[in-house]
Amino acid sequence: MSNGSPVRASDEVRVARAALTRLAEPAGAALWQLVARLGPVGALAEVRDRHERGRPVPGMHAERATDHQAHADLGTVAALGGRLVVPEDDEWPTDLLDGLRHIHAEDSPTMPPLGLWVRGQVPLATACKAAVAIVGARAATPYGNHVSGELGYGLADRGWAVVSGGAYGIDGAAHRGTLAADGTTVAVLACGVDRAYPPGHAALFDRIAGTGAVVAEWPPGATPQRWRFLVRNRLIAALTAGTVVVEAGARSGARQTARRADELSRAVLAVPGPVTSAMSVGCHRLVREAGARLVTSAADVDAELGGLGDAAPEPVRAPDGPRDSLGAAAAQVLEGVPARCPGGLAEVAAQAGVPVLTAARELPGLATVGLVVDTPQGWVLTDAGRSR
Amino acid sequence: MSNGSPVRASDEVRVARAALTRLAEPAGAALWQLVARLGPVGALAEVRDRHERGRPVPGMHAERATDHQAHADLGTVAALGGRLVVPEDDEWPTDLLDGLRHIHAEDSPTMPPLGLWVRGQVPLATACKAAVAIVGARAATPYGNHVSGELGYGLADRGWAVVSGGAYGIDGAAHRGTLAADGTTVAVLACGVDRAYPPGHAALFDRIAGTGAVVAEWPPGATPQRWRFLVRNRLIAALTAGTVVVEAGARSGARQTARRADELSRAVLAVPGPVTSAMSVGCHRLVREAGARLVTSAADVDAELGGLGDAAPEPVRAPDGPRDSLGAAAAQVLEGVPARCPGGLAEVAAQAGVPVLTAARELPGLATVGLVVDTPQGWVLTDAGRSR
Repeated sequence: MSNGSPVRASDEVRVARAALTRLAEPAGAALWQLVARLGPVGALAEVRDRHERGRPVPGMHAERATDHQAHADLGTVAALGGRLVVPEDDEWPTDLLDGLRHIHAEDSPTMPPLGLWVRGQVPLATACKAAVAIVGARAATPYGNHVSGELGYGLADRGWAVVSGGAYGIDGAAHRGTLAADGTTVAVLACGVDRAYPPGHAALFDRIAGTGAVVAEWPPGATPQRWRFLVRNRLIAALTAGTVVVEAGARSGARQTARRADELSRAVLAVPGPVTSAMSVGCHRLVREAGARLVTSAADVDAELGGLGDAAPEPVRAPDGPRDSLGAAAAQVLEGVPARCPGGLAEVAAQAGVPVLTAARELPGLATVGLVVDTPQGWVLTDAGRSR
Repeated sequence: MSNGSPVRASDEVRVARAALTRLAEPAGAALWQLVARLGPVGALAEVRDRHERGRPVPGMHAERATDHQAHADLGTVAALGGRLVVPEDDEWPTDLLDGLRHIHAEDSPTMPPLGLWVRGQVPLATACKAAVAIVGARAATPYGNHVSGELGYGLADRGWAVVSGGAYGIDGAAHRGTLAADGTTVAVLACGVDRAYPPGHAALFDRIAGTGAVVAEWPPGATPQRWRFLVRNRLIAALTAGTVVVEAGARSGARQTARRADELSRAVLAVPGPVTSAMSVGCHRLVREAGARLVTSAADVDAELGGLGDAAPEPVRAPDGPRDSLGAAAAQVLEGVPARCPGGLAEVAAQAGVPVLTAARELPGLATVGLVVDTPQGWVLTDAGRSR
């Protein structure tokens, strides 16, 4: 560690965890707790031993989880430029995934993964350090696809990685928008990373793995069974600071991902659409009934998640006056300051369309550069502020 | 009063208040407080006396507010089938308008009206007993006009009166939708009720006055000055239980009406639209930044305002089983009950897309009629509930 090289699990641990991903469906509490108690090598030995003695553990397939198969799986994924990332590696995003231990859902199991099969070279913790999930309907409308692509692009532009599920519709548009901005995007699949599901996205997954990551809990060859999407959804929520639902029908899986995000105390964000569109019903319900925050742009998402975008470098150009050197927030607040009749903080904020705290933070600076003045009746533009 | 005939102000009071509507622009605190102290007759005499003595009160035009002119104004409006409604009449909606005394705004005065000129025969308090404001952009999109008309129709169908401002776009569509459902609609103008502004709505105002009311604070002949819309907006908010903004640009007057509704502790509701539409920016900002509730339908608005629609008679048809005799809320909750694997209250509510309280209220009844059962693991459908 002193020379800065990454900490990696021992080969024995990695082979054991590879076998564990084939031993049982992921996310169940029983195997996770056994591994927590005995370690991956011990847990695997215990399950195999019970299998040998003719008293197999229900739901665990020791006959499939051989060392031979584990080595074969590791080889298959290595041949695709991938690897198995395990909790003993320092690229494991512990902070993000640990919360899964503490939630409970009635519709599917929710424990942390025992290992993650990853195609792509970016360290997983790096890829997910500042990540947003964009999810939504497969049968998206042109409006939804457009907005999803724009969000992916705009968030990448602000330094966010974009995590999604690789499906047709909203997911695919989000991945593509992110790639178009040369951003990092992560596709979390409900099948092995050696499979392309949906098949039409094979080339997209290759592009994603080129700069980002294609991730799955299931070993190579695993097929996208229906229940696996429900289990997969918790990972999309867990790997990100927040989940944006772009379009969702009344019973969409995207709403389940949003529920997981909420259970994990991550932000739940929803993009509105026409009330006449069935594909926006799920988004509107999230806002109306589940406390989701309405977002209309990458800037809104960035603001909801704490403003990574504020840290991005300002575009470089020669300022020709105080107004031109303003940050984006200050410029927006300035828009809300009355030209003639002084207005209070709340009024400036409302006119500018910013939170009151933002107005309170920016107004003193605007006064310092001589664009506004704080009168006994409230804030008002100066002559300099009025002349653009 | 014992024979049930309505209480009406004396002629002297009505003539004095007619003159007061010509004496000064409405909503100012000075004249309102003078009337509160001296009564309408005394206040008018006081202002006239100061005028005679060469010491006129600033902003008050005693020379225009003669008894002769007041009688002429009353005659003009009577010829249109109208009248001046005054606070001394029992059709004055005191409960709704009194709140205006207690709010303070920086952009325009907000005191209660001194009298309301009304075209139409419906008693004002009756028309506004259960009323919703629908407001929005003049330059509405086809989407906005469609949604506004549907809301007007659906709210009228549920027993609500619809109040709006008579403008092109969202306002006009709301009035028309309400009329199409044979509902009561009230147009609150920023000019005299003898004027049609906009001129293209002259026939619409005639239809509105036929079953509802066209209302203004200004005497006949008053022109629609720009600032009068700001003053007028507080009345639209005050006469209603809540304000729905259907489409609004970033600086729309509809957002000012919404702000007044909020200051009056009335519901502020906003209809979302495409995030790509400039005409939905104001609505989305209301939800994001001003705490407005997102609504997508007349049913949503009705629910937000306490559910007048629940009191409407159920459609009559022969029930052929317990499922068919369910109310709308119970039927929706039933949709959220799992068929196989029991679910908790929160899960049922989330799946049904209803508030948890609604699920809690409806589930016991559904159990009573044998459609669901409360197991130790949660709620689940019975065989009867599963078979449609």
